[in-house]
Amino acid sequence: MAQVDYPEPVKVLIAHLKQLPGIGPKSAERIAVWLMQQGTEVTGQFSQALGRAGDLVIECGTCGFFSTLERGCSVCDGHQRDSSLLCIVEQPTDILPLERSGAFRGHYHSLRGRISPLDNIGPEDLRVRELILRLEGGGFSEVILALSSDVEGEATSNYLVEVLAVFPELRVSRLAQGLPAGGGLNSADELTLLRALQGRVGV
Amino acid sequence: MAQVDYPEPVKVLIAHLKQLPGIGPKSAERIAVWLMQQGTEVTGQFSQALGRAGDLVIECGTCGFFSTLERGCSVCDGHQRDSSLLCIVEQPTDILPLERSGAFRGHYHSLRGRISPLDNIGPEDLRVRELILRLEGGGFSEVILALSSDVEGEATSNYLVEVLAVFPELRVSRLAQGLPAGGGLNSADELTLLRALQGRVGV
Repeated sequence: MAQVDYPEPVKVLIAHLKQLPGIGPKSAERIAVWLMQQGTEVTGQFSQALGRAGDLVIECGTCGFFSTLERGCSVCDGHQRDSSLLCIVEQPTDILPLERSGAFRGHYHSLRGRISPLDNIGPEDLRVRELILRLEGGGFSEVILALSSDVEGEATSNYLVEVLAVFPELRVSRLAQGLPAGGGLNSADELTLLRALQGRVGV
Repeated sequence: MAQVDYPEPVKVLIAHLKQLPGIGPKSAERIAVWLMQQGTEVTGQFSQALGRAGDLVIECGTCGFFSTLERGCSVCDGHQRDSSLLCIVEQPTDILPLERSGAFRGHYHSLRGRISPLDNIGPEDLRVRELILRLEGGGFSEVILALSSDVEGEATSNYLVEVLAVFPELRVSRLAQGLPAGGGLNSADELTLLRALQGRVGV
């Protein structure tokens, strides 16, 4: 008897979905089935949106955020930015939350990742060379390391502190660590409390 | 200052991703960023796979599994199937695990869902009329209800039992409920234990 299986186009689609971050085999199957049940119009528009985004969107060579050839980079092209401040983030996605906080109006530099030996990501995979070139271009007086406060983020921050030592005039700072806003002491883990204590501020 | 935001093609892509089942706004953003970082080749192939699956794959009018116009339905077209047995499932995805179990070689009928008032899904949204027509066509001696053992699945099973009462000759059965294979008593919830006890089998 012929083996029952999904038609080949569905299997190809599932294979693509499985590669997405955070999508396992079960989810990929579920999403593919859902898509097939929506019909040609939904899948067609989705397919078009995906192809269009892939074709039109490029990484900004300066900050690493997304930009388009037609419209340029909405980060680097922004006027009234403080050109003496450079904020280093892991991913382009980290730029939007910082912008929304309203607390920073300088320039950004996305590393496109962080040092993570388990994932085979070393310093050479990050946009560090681009960072050095930008800083050699001059004009920045302070670099703010806005990386994650987990092991990989700390390792990347420490590495950058060493690299940036070649610019003795440059002030290098990190984001404060401590209790999150609205967080009670009973919900904070020990490391967060340790860091909140170490970083305590006089009142 | 111009607002920093994703370029419009990325925003459109995120909007599409957010609609997928099990994908929230954060995951959609993460997947879109990952896709943009893969480059045009990956997004192009993915887009093509999606469009192709949407264009080529149709729902089999008989069993509700996926089929293509060129190749037909691998479930209904299978030879050596027991044409007296009909297994009713909620989704086309439920057919493959049953096939893999090797315990059933009859025909299938996918309902395309189950009764769920919270999701506004009533009996009229399911492929019940198609089921009746199939049974009126004759030839089936037993219908096996292979629906989920949760509230919605049970409600749908009960509804079908009522509907199928118009075929007095037809045997209607349900999947057994009890301990899952390899499951210890300490990891089973009370309802599972209750049903395993109620369904106990003489040895």
